[in-house]
Amino acid sequence: MHTTHWTLARRAARLNPSTIREILKLTERPGIVSLAGGLPSADTFPVEAMRAACERVLGTQAREALQYAASEGYAPLREWVAQELLETQGMRVEPSQVLITTGSQQGLDLLGKVLIDPGCTVAVESPTYLGALQAFAPFEPEFQAIASDDAGPVPDALRAAAGARLFYLLPNFQNPSGRCLSEPRRRELLAAANEARIPIVEDNPYGDLWFDTPPPPTLSALAAETGATTLYLGSFSKVLAPGLRLGYVVAPTALYPKLLQAKQAADLHTPGFNQRIVHEVVKSGFLREHVPTIRARYRAQRDAMAASLARHLPPGCRWQLPVGGMFFWIDLPAGLDATALLPRAVDAGVAFVPGAPFFAEGARADCLRLSFVTVPPERIEVGVAALGRVLAEALAQIPN
Amino acid sequence: MHTTHWTLARRAARLNPSTIREILKLTERPGIVSLAGGLPSADTFPVEAMRAACERVLGTQAREALQYAASEGYAPLREWVAQELLETQGMRVEPSQVLITTGSQQGLDLLGKVLIDPGCTVAVESPTYLGALQAFAPFEPEFQAIASDDAGPVPDALRAAAGARLFYLLPNFQNPSGRCLSEPRRRELLAAANEARIPIVEDNPYGDLWFDTPPPPTLSALAAETGATTLYLGSFSKVLAPGLRLGYVVAPTALYPKLLQAKQAADLHTPGFNQRIVHEVVKSGFLREHVPTIRARYRAQRDAMAASLARHLPPGCRWQLPVGGMFFWIDLPAGLDATALLPRAVDAGVAFVPGAPFFAEGARADCLRLSFVTVPPERIEVGVAALGRVLAEALAQIPN
Repeated sequence: MHTTHWTLARRAARLNPSTIREILKLTERPGIVSLAGGLPSADTFPVEAMRAACERVLGTQAREALQYAASEGYAPLREWVAQELLETQGMRVEPSQVLITTGSQQGLDLLGKVLIDPGCTVAVESPTYLGALQAFAPFEPEFQAIASDDAGPVPDALRAAAGARLFYLLPNFQNPSGRCLSEPRRRELLAAANEARIPIVEDNPYGDLWFDTPPPPTLSALAAETGATTLYLGSFSKVLAPGLRLGYVVAPTALYPKLLQAKQAADLHTPGFNQRIVHEVVKSGFLREHVPTIRARYRAQRDAMAASLARHLPPGCRWQLPVGGMFFWIDLPAGLDATALLPRAVDAGVAFVPGAPFFAEGARADCLRLSFVTVPPERIEVGVAALGRVLAEALAQIPN
Repeated sequence: MHTTHWTLARRAARLNPSTIREILKLTERPGIVSLAGGLPSADTFPVEAMRAACERVLGTQAREALQYAASEGYAPLREWVAQELLETQGMRVEPSQVLITTGSQQGLDLLGKVLIDPGCTVAVESPTYLGALQAFAPFEPEFQAIASDDAGPVPDALRAAAGARLFYLLPNFQNPSGRCLSEPRRRELLAAANEARIPIVEDNPYGDLWFDTPPPPTLSALAAETGATTLYLGSFSKVLAPGLRLGYVVAPTALYPKLLQAKQAADLHTPGFNQRIVHEVVKSGFLREHVPTIRARYRAQRDAMAASLARHLPPGCRWQLPVGGMFFWIDLPAGLDATALLPRAVDAGVAFVPGAPFFAEGARADCLRLSFVTVPPERIEVGVAALGRVLAEALAQIPN
């Protein structure tokens, strides 16, 4: 045996195959309407702008773009991020606080490395972004799921988590629930976090994808007033393209050096080539024109799915209309188990993501996530109709 | 204070500013001849091939290149890596063993995460690649430096490290020492590792940069005969361009799933855009034409530096002629401290990297690393002459 000499670290036991990844494999069969993806629509990728930017970068700065570069990131892109956060979010950020990362997923990994000791408590929303649970898990925290009501995490539940190393939350159009926190709830959570001395890690990949009105100010923007402590994660994946793997962390000055050292150790730096291309694309206001086209497209998609859901889901299913982002979250009638229903749904020609993996504690079986952004409306109708039939049949089988 | 709520993980104490990074900042002053860099020469970057590849990728596969992608990496690139390792190294590797990483630095981080428990022993060469020490350190190992003779790590010293979680080594034109292991020493080290049940992590970023004859087979190629266990790290940074951040791990089948899960958690996947561009560049044998041009250039640069060293370094300095790679390693006469001499050298107009940071244990002060690849020969001559003067002056000040 060639592999007998390897010994795994204890933390490796906390690395596990992604349930969702396994589900997505199922759904790659031809003919399946997959509402399971977490991908943005490829129709929104600005290919022409990217092509022009590649041309310019390789024409005028190829040697720098292809060479090793600073671990902090490309300085003009860091400056752009700081300016953009000021203009669009009212956040006052120094470029020196911006750390460019290989997707915002890497920001989560770096935070785990720098902040999480084995056995310490990490507070998360319930449900929360699965990728964050996966990033934090190998650092062996105990997750504490903060109870939610319809408006989001409950401030008193956060207060009760005093001692937690951090509270991770997505304020806008959350993955998976689609929920957007109201401004009062944001302020209440900031106050609670401040009282309980829990720093907030605010992850905002979907904030630009609003449909009618912009979401309330980020917790990080409000934090300046309240004295609470936040760290902010942003991403280019949903407004440009995820295949570039570009995100950023805005870190408190006291944390920045350790995050930077963790970044160096992790991959030296995010590809300079990608950073310069994105800077070329965004530097002259491209997103001001481009993001509204994504919003319009996603809103029409949402409307299509909302109509299909109303037509086809059986009584007892409940959902909120998402006002931004990419997802519907469906609460099923009591007694239904989304994970158990998935194979039947796939047989019927539709795929979704069961809700259970998104819960760090107390997983609920009776919920699921549907993406409305990648499948055209006529296929959404076909998929949701199939889902409706599967749910109706399952309901009919529940003994009264 | 906004930052008082943050508590660092214990491992964060093992994250520290890179000494070499700080040195490199010093050397960015205009007029300094920097022999301190670890960068490849930007003159070797195949800009035209990259430009054509970008054009093709964005012209024919933009949607896929810009979308989320598989954590394992782009399948055709993984197949190319397996085939290339067979053709150029005689290594029998399945594409399913290849994990594409964001530079080979990320491979080191993933290995640390999956294999290193706090307090476990990690055996390393002495000196060794500083980036590996930085990647492993936050996982809190105890480093054990394996004693070296002129031929490289001493097999009996490796045997004495039985119990180590892994032995990390660079077989070819090592950074920093420039040393290439002989085939007998490779076989002896494999036998010793096998006896001591220590798996070998073989990092080979410089193997293609040989000047006269290819290096002996990799330990991973030889391992199949001996029954020893190895894991292999490769990189596109030195044969194409580091700014793309593309490397790979070839992992034993039993380790692959955990490394893959760590990869997903770390950054979901390496940019698909970059992977497809590199695949476009390399798929039709481009490296067969391109790498020989790098070899010829670097050999001429090495010859220039060898001549300058012979002309200018004072008696008592010793070095081996590197037969590949990017570095000369200089042993200084007893009593000289390279770190202490660096400010004087910078004042005299030349920069180098002191040897001390490359030692995990028992750091030696009387050694330094010079890169011969980025500075043109006439500037190498100026820089080495300045270094010679600084060393001669320092020697004159040592009391007899």
